[in-house]
Amino acid sequence: MQNIQTVIDSIYDEMKNHLGEGKVADYIPELAKIDPKQFGIAVTTVEGETFVAGDAAVPFSIQSISKVFMLTLALGKAGESVWKRVGREPSGSSFNSIVQLEHEHGIPRNPFVNAGAIVVTDMVLAGHQPREAIGELLRFVRYLSNDDTVSIDNTVAKSEQATGFRNFALANFMRSFGNIHHPVDHTLGVYFHQCALSMNCVQLARAGLFLANRGRNPLTGHTVVSDRRARRINALMLTCGHYDGSGDFAYHVGLPGKSGVGGGILAVAPGKASIAVWSPGLNKVGNSALGSDALEMLANRMGWSVFGA
Amino acid sequence: MQNIQTVIDSIYDEMKNHLGEGKVADYIPELAKIDPKQFGIAVTTVEGETFVAGDAAVPFSIQSISKVFMLTLALGKAGESVWKRVGREPSGSSFNSIVQLEHEHGIPRNPFVNAGAIVVTDMVLAGHQPREAIGELLRFVRYLSNDDTVSIDNTVAKSEQATGFRNFALANFMRSFGNIHHPVDHTLGVYFHQCALSMNCVQLARAGLFLANRGRNPLTGHTVVSDRRARRINALMLTCGHYDGSGDFAYHVGLPGKSGVGGGILAVAPGKASIAVWSPGLNKVGNSALGSDALEMLANRMGWSVFGA
Amino acid sequence: MQNIQTVIDSIYDEMKNHLGEGKVADYIPELAKIDPKQFGIAVTTVEGETFVAGDAAVPFSIQSISKVFMLTLALGKAGESVWKRVGREPSGSSFNSIVQLEHEHGIPRNPFVNAGAIVVTDMVLAGHQPREAIGELLRFVRYLSNDDTVSIDNTVAKSEQATGFRNFALANFMRSFGNIHHPVDHTLGVYFHQCALSMNCVQLARAGLFLANRGRNPLTGHTVVSDRRARRINALMLTCGHYDGSGDFAYHVGLPGKSGVGGGILAVAPGKASIAVWSPGLNKVGNSALGSDALEMLANRMGWSVFGA
Amino acid sequence: MQNIQTVIDSIYDEMKNHLGEGKVADYIPELAKIDPKQFGIAVTTVEGETFVAGDAAVPFSIQSISKVFMLTLALGKAGESVWKRVGREPSGSSFNSIVQLEHEHGIPRNPFVNAGAIVVTDMVLAGHQPREAIGELLRFVRYLSNDDTVSIDNTVAKSEQATGFRNFALANFMRSFGNIHHPVDHTLGVYFHQCALSMNCVQLARAGLFLANRGRNPLTGHTVVSDRRARRINALMLTCGHYDGSGDFAYHVGLPGKSGVGGGILAVAPGKASIAVWSPGLNKVGNSALGSDALEMLANRMGWSVFGA
Repeated sequence: MQNIQTVIDSIYDEMKNHLGEGKVADYIPELAKIDPKQFGIAVTTVEGETFVAGDAAVPFSIQSISKVFMLTLALGKAGESVWKRVGREPSGSSFNSIVQLEHEHGIPRNPFVNAGAIVVTDMVLAGHQPREAIGELLRFVRYLSNDDTVSIDNTVAKSEQATGFRNFALANFMRSFGNIHHPVDHTLGVYFHQCALSMNCVQLARAGLFLANRGRNPLTGHTVVSDRRARRINALMLTCGHYDGSGDFAYHVGLPGKSGVGGGILAVAPGKASIAVWSPGLNKVGNSALGSDALEMLANRMGWSVFGA
Repeated sequence: MQNIQTVIDSIYDEMKNHLGEGKVADYIPELAKIDPKQFGIAVTTVEGETFVAGDAAVPFSIQSISKVFMLTLALGKAGESVWKRVGREPSGSSFNSIVQLEHEHGIPRNPFVNAGAIVVTDMVLAGHQPREAIGELLRFVRYLSNDDTVSIDNTVAKSEQATGFRNFALANFMRSFGNIHHPVDHTLGVYFHQCALSMNCVQLARAGLFLANRGRNPLTGHTVVSDRRARRINALMLTCGHYDGSGDFAYHVGLPGKSGVGGGILAVAPGKASIAVWSPGLNKVGNSALGSDALEMLANRMGWSVFGA
Repeated sequence: MQNIQTVIDSIYDEMKNHLGEGKVADYIPELAKIDPKQFGIAVTTVEGETFVAGDAAVPFSIQSISKVFMLTLALGKAGESVWKRVGREPSGSSFNSIVQLEHEHGIPRNPFVNAGAIVVTDMVLAGHQPREAIGELLRFVRYLSNDDTVSIDNTVAKSEQATGFRNFALANFMRSFGNIHHPVDHTLGVYFHQCALSMNCVQLARAGLFLANRGRNPLTGHTVVSDRRARRINALMLTCGHYDGSGDFAYHVGLPGKSGVGGGILAVAPGKASIAVWSPGLNKVGNSALGSDALEMLANRMGWSVFGA
Repeated sequence: MQNIQTVIDSIYDEMKNHLGEGKVADYIPELAKIDPKQFGIAVTTVEGETFVAGDAAVPFSIQSISKVFMLTLALGKAGESVWKRVGREPSGSSFNSIVQLEHEHGIPRNPFVNAGAIVVTDMVLAGHQPREAIGELLRFVRYLSNDDTVSIDNTVAKSEQATGFRNFALANFMRSFGNIHHPVDHTLGVYFHQCALSMNCVQLARAGLFLANRGRNPLTGHTVVSDRRARRINALMLTCGHYDGSGDFAYHVGLPGKSGVGGGILAVAPGKASIAVWSPGLNKVGNSALGSDALEMLANRMGWSVFGA
């Protein structure tokens, strides 16, 4: 094993030659405005040390990475009954496919495809007003990252709300099967705000640290979830965290991870560290191109793959 | 961590109360004849010790578990070019679905669904006669398990050949896309024989040990594959090894594994051990019911999940 | 050929023994309240004579039959450019399937599945307010039937609006592909009102008469569409008018027709007559059970099938 | 109505300017060798007169048009029980799709997609040797066309047998569901020979004449099928006869018809005439490009659409 700072510095050096590669998400106008030539990485170890390189302090829209935090909240509220309304299997299709929903009668395949995350949001809403649920999520993420400056970018949320027809289709479709319990506008109102969480790599790495440390955040001493639940969330991230590129990510990186179309990826090395990378250009399955490459290098050089000794 | 023998003895004690649960595969006449009230487990550690309980010495038809060995052979011959003809993503459908093949133009999703394994077999055939390829596979599995008594059950192979219309459909379909290069009868001839490999739990656990030990079999000292390739095969087993129950297996067990309709499962605890369980009754996604439960207990009690510290 | 009145009287006599068979649509609360033991039939010939039997004067919700009138309006406004946004092929799936839409990028298969009818409605809306488009449709149907008492049942419309999540899903899904041009609420507002058109068999048979008479209504002397367009609308009704029971209807009845879940069917015998039947109980593909049987008898006894001499 | 000879002469004149348009089927080597610059048409009226233009005497491979004759044979043998093993609905997909078969458990949608025709062939085989069934079909088509020179092109049959992997896939797939009762090689042996029937336009128009004349061939006086069965076969041709272009053909031509990839189309104008056209170039849904256009002109100019008065 090598020194972490040395490793991420050398990765950043290599990535500098590739800044701007990939394709920035443009289906949300606000995301399309981001400068693609950025790359940041932060590694927080279970011992509590944080290492950074590049644009690790620049906030970005974490988008689907928020699904991990929302699932954690929902499991806390509903326990294993969550799985009555959403599955745990990889989808074999793109992040916003509606085909599977018709074949499986409104039950999404897993909590990390859009449909599944919308159902999870509907569980967290649990009869409250959207504003309260959004507040609850924001408090939770600030608690996880131990940083009260984490915020939601309302411009991004509004931008998604105005153009998210596909998500309206998914939610109405599931409602037709009885798998959305609140008015679609309420559930999606919360959903669009969670996607608009704005965090930098350091905040994100810290927020995910409990997953690398048996459910307990070593920085704060808080136990977020049980040891078993942390393992299970990691398992879901590994099998379903990168849409139809999950198998590829497992093959090359070998770590549980969750990506977002904003270009961020949160990865977990159990027992070792939580890692956040960010670079806006996406590869053809919708995951950060440079972020994926950086994680492969990091996992290989540190020997962190869960599939090796 | 507890003593391995104590753990598997207690697991066996619990399993005794459930012998015969699940449904024995009956689509192949030969498999339907098996006494369902059997359960065996063998654990071989990277230090070279083997622990057994129950019917660990009874040979059974390993069926799809052979796909792991055949993939290892194909990667040895063709290297990463294997992935030009087969994908690496979970399928999101059952083991013998043909729908995905049509949508993706004859390229199977991964090497562990039937279609993918048939393509992998076609690669290993590589212009040779079926008899030679079958011989090569048998020698390879004997070499891995360090046991020359491993054999192929020709009655099972013939039984599959006579009733395997679905596999003939898959192979012809892929041939229509140019993704099978040999006469369908040749490729399937080899395929049906590999499925008919007969092994007991001890032999199987030993044959998979290289995957738990960075590619090297500590019992023989042979390096089978590189460290990186072992990790990658493990990653494929974890994301795709249990058909449409792969996500569930990762969630509950947290180990790379490959199941067969004969009721066997090979699981890998990287850096720790290779495990083979066998019990003929299958759960509703086609994996050994007792075998899955036993592995969940073992992984939990030994702390072997790849997703925990 | 026999006397029409004699034929429909004998059909009504037979149907009396089966009143209440089939299953009344219950997905819209208002429809579920209808007394199922009703059957009406009206035949209007191209010579202008009308023959009735049973409950031919009882108004019912014509539901999807309205799609024929809306398509006629849209073709009048947009001509053949209608087909840039909707196909002309049978769907091979149920009336509200969303799977096909994903595979064909938001272009519905034909104007008589829900998605297609919603697109057609969006064309008729054409920048106007929903209220105006609803008014235009109502005037058009009154003009076709030459009867100003045809009305829209606002209770039914509201009932559909409150429960039509599947249609909201379809519309939002198509909007995500750019194939809905107005706010989804506007387009669906019109759509739900057109489905709620309330007519009796006599009114409906008269409204469809132009399709049996080369595009000209012989009762009023108005030319509604050209000869060619009438033929083409008939062709669409024959291939696509009964959802996934269209082939079966062609096989047994042999007439262009369009059914609605309210239990009505409008059928066209080119050069001979327009026929409306109504009975609330539906068969398993969602078409009026007694209505289909009655039309088969009528077509056979009168020799009206388009497929015979 | 105009004089038939005048109409087809003028159509032929127009078609001469387009000879060679479209794309000749090349998936069977033998078909790819045909000179694309050919066009023939033959019209046989129910009064027994035959009119020809262009290459009406040149034999061509009728391919899927043979499915009409095979279905007629199967209905004669098995009656309506045919529909237990094959449906009557348009497919909504291409001629050789296997997706639908999986969703509907091995029951093809209709007798005119490949899978359905293979099942129909399996019914006609009915325990006999392939050679006998081929002989029976050939005698039947000679009897229908009243011409003993109709033959089967064995080179084409062998060419299809050697490359028809997709059909082997379909047949094996259906056999896995128990919907093929003979060895796949036997059923497909007959199937490939029926596709290889070689006929010219005159022979083909005469062979289809019974469908235009209530089931009775006016040239020979033979009653082939009942009035009702003729209507029903026509209905199937209209809704399913042109694969995923059936709706379009009904819309433009308005006649029951069946196309083949050899470039032939058989169309039926009930009570008027049987029409055969042939030109090798295919449009993008796989039907003869010039043949479709010619039939649209003919139907319009003669007023033969079943959808007009």
